[in-house]
Amino acid sequence: MATVERWLLPDGIEEVLPPQAAQIEATRRQVLDMFEAWGYEFVVTPHIEFLESLLTGAGQKLDLRTFKVTDPQSGHLMGFRADITPQVARMDAHSLRREGPSRLCYAGSVVHARPRALSRSRSPIQLGAELYGDASPAADIEVISLMLATLEHAEIADIHMDLGHVGVYRGLARAANLSDDLEAQIFDALQRKAVDEVAALTAQLPEKLAQMLQQLSQLCGGREVLDQAKTILADAPESVLTALDQLTVVADALILRYPHLPFYFDLGELRGYHYHTGVVFAAFVPNVGQSIAQGGRYDDIGAVFGRARPATGFSTDLKTLVNLGQRKAAELPSGIWAPTGAADDLWQAVCALRNQGQRVVQALPGQSVSDAAQARCDRQLVQNSSGWEVQPL
Amino acid sequence: MATVERWLLPDGIEEVLPPQAAQIEATRRQVLDMFEAWGYEFVVTPHIEFLESLLTGAGQKLDLRTFKVTDPQSGHLMGFRADITPQVARMDAHSLRREGPSRLCYAGSVVHARPRALSRSRSPIQLGAELYGDASPAADIEVISLMLATLEHAEIADIHMDLGHVGVYRGLARAANLSDDLEAQIFDALQRKAVDEVAALTAQLPEKLAQMLQQLSQLCGGREVLDQAKTILADAPESVLTALDQLTVVADALILRYPHLPFYFDLGELRGYHYHTGVVFAAFVPNVGQSIAQGGRYDDIGAVFGRARPATGFSTDLKTLVNLGQRKAAELPSGIWAPTGAADDLWQAVCALRNQGQRVVQALPGQSVSDAAQARCDRQLVQNSSGWEVQPL
Repeated sequence: MATVERWLLPDGIEEVLPPQAAQIEATRRQVLDMFEAWGYEFVVTPHIEFLESLLTGAGQKLDLRTFKVTDPQSGHLMGFRADITPQVARMDAHSLRREGPSRLCYAGSVVHARPRALSRSRSPIQLGAELYGDASPAADIEVISLMLATLEHAEIADIHMDLGHVGVYRGLARAANLSDDLEAQIFDALQRKAVDEVAALTAQLPEKLAQMLQQLSQLCGGREVLDQAKTILADAPESVLTALDQLTVVADALILRYPHLPFYFDLGELRGYHYHTGVVFAAFVPNVGQSIAQGGRYDDIGAVFGRARPATGFSTDLKTLVNLGQRKAAELPSGIWAPTGAADDLWQAVCALRNQGQRVVQALPGQSVSDAAQARCDRQLVQNSSGWEVQPL
Repeated sequence: MATVERWLLPDGIEEVLPPQAAQIEATRRQVLDMFEAWGYEFVVTPHIEFLESLLTGAGQKLDLRTFKVTDPQSGHLMGFRADITPQVARMDAHSLRREGPSRLCYAGSVVHARPRALSRSRSPIQLGAELYGDASPAADIEVISLMLATLEHAEIADIHMDLGHVGVYRGLARAANLSDDLEAQIFDALQRKAVDEVAALTAQLPEKLAQMLQQLSQLCGGREVLDQAKTILADAPESVLTALDQLTVVADALILRYPHLPFYFDLGELRGYHYHTGVVFAAFVPNVGQSIAQGGRYDDIGAVFGRARPATGFSTDLKTLVNLGQRKAAELPSGIWAPTGAADDLWQAVCALRNQGQRVVQALPGQSVSDAAQARCDRQLVQNSSGWEVQPL
């Protein structure tokens, strides 16, 4: 690489300069404070871990997204975190081992070897919350509400929500006793809403199950979809009906809370099917292809860490919140311009002002008051007969 | 790796659980706010970059400390940041390109393939500040004062400071026209204060230079060392005398500001010799082998990014600040326990309290008031005839 290229950053890897960095930091603090106000405790997970821990319960996508290195100390394969959720699950299952529900939250950079989508960052700042130990719809409702509060805080306009439940397809697939191969093929066809393919793939199945699978891809739309599903899937296995009931409880509570928010239901779209176990959700805005915040239930993720617990949570990207949000950056504080010099009385005056919470920028040799504006100062420290005093500029 | 081992973290890689994580976050905010009050602007650098940018101007140690991967997008070699300083230098030189002095600060995790020392973390949270564009001792004095203010904020006891200047040895080595090999050998012997080895290695040099190099390793101790050095190095090249003068100005200003702080000078110890260009400094505490905060001048680091600028700065580790500091964790806020349920009036009451800045934890199905204490709640939300009200527990 020539010298001229040293300042290039890799594709999808961004730095954040002033004043945007201050806005990122302010939003980070406000959202974490909100998580705290909802009872979520802050945790810090490491940037690197043994690969097996990092990819626990996760699908192939996370594997492809994860940079791998060999640990020179242990010889084991390690990965750079591409997602924080499995790390927090390890904490809940192993490090904390609490009785009863546990609410945890985090904010930190992740790195993606391959971006989630072509135009997406490979260095998002992941922000999220997880609720362990409660299997009821109350936990899903709380986590989705917290996600919506986060988006609302960032003042992101024109949000619409997708809701689904992976238990519907999973229950039908199990009842049909599908081979892994066939389950994957039908799954793939459902994602593409390829109705004819689903019909062909299910042609050999018992008629009722085949019909239900075929109709899954059409079960998408507003709240009415849940009622249609109850009719169409009336003869489905118990687990499917339970899934539908859970989704309905969650949906109705959210529609009550957010009467103006568009909710969209899709029983054939199976976001994170290999990872999730229950209600799944995602928030979208117009003109952005991928979800801007998403999550779902992933019960028993902690099992490989020695403790299976119900779990649900969401995550989003702090940079996306700031970039898409309408929230105005808080005005950066102005300051007091102090003259150059190491004299003790000047130093004491500067310290006293900073201790009072003032921002004080000291001139460097060769600088004058004309440099004060660039340093965001609107006042100056001036020596008079009785000592140092602050005057307007 | 067996299932039973999945919760293990690699050696030197730590997670931070509640409530310590809250203390880490609180200290992070307080220190960044202090940096802001001194005029330093916050920046966010990426966790991964092209290796050539990341290792710019850095020595072999940083190279060995850096995990490397190939970028699947570009095919170039990338590294995970093991130090943030070179990244901020790239920002100053290329991304910001400001006229006049620039003050930048940062806080973020770094990852070390090999730890700085046997017992050290491989996942510190690096916290630091950099001052670009001023070559005078005033900049060194400011940056060292800010480092001391940071340590003072964390209430770290029994600090002592080491001060030096790499220009002394460098000036003598250049005047002696040492081969790279010999310069490295004498450098190595000086680090170990191996007086006899230095004598043997300098035996062929002009007598005056040999004597000065030999006496360098003995030039260590209190402020008096600087006066001794002026006598012993009286015939040294101009650049050596300038270095001594710069160090003396910085030392005297700091001794005036911090009359009770022990300062130790060592003209033979050359911390970061390949990286630094002027005054170097480090803070130590008893019973910790390595410095707990350190920095120095590294002028012209930006040259490879197209712009050589004077530069000085310091860095420390947030976890070390919290672990070694005597600062008591702020008491975590208590909260209000709300009953379970998705009823709209309850939801509105909870929202109103949270908007007032209250921490409200809602019970999950099956939980009762007896679970409130574990959720750090000392009050509860109770329904009476006129609505919801907060009562003591």
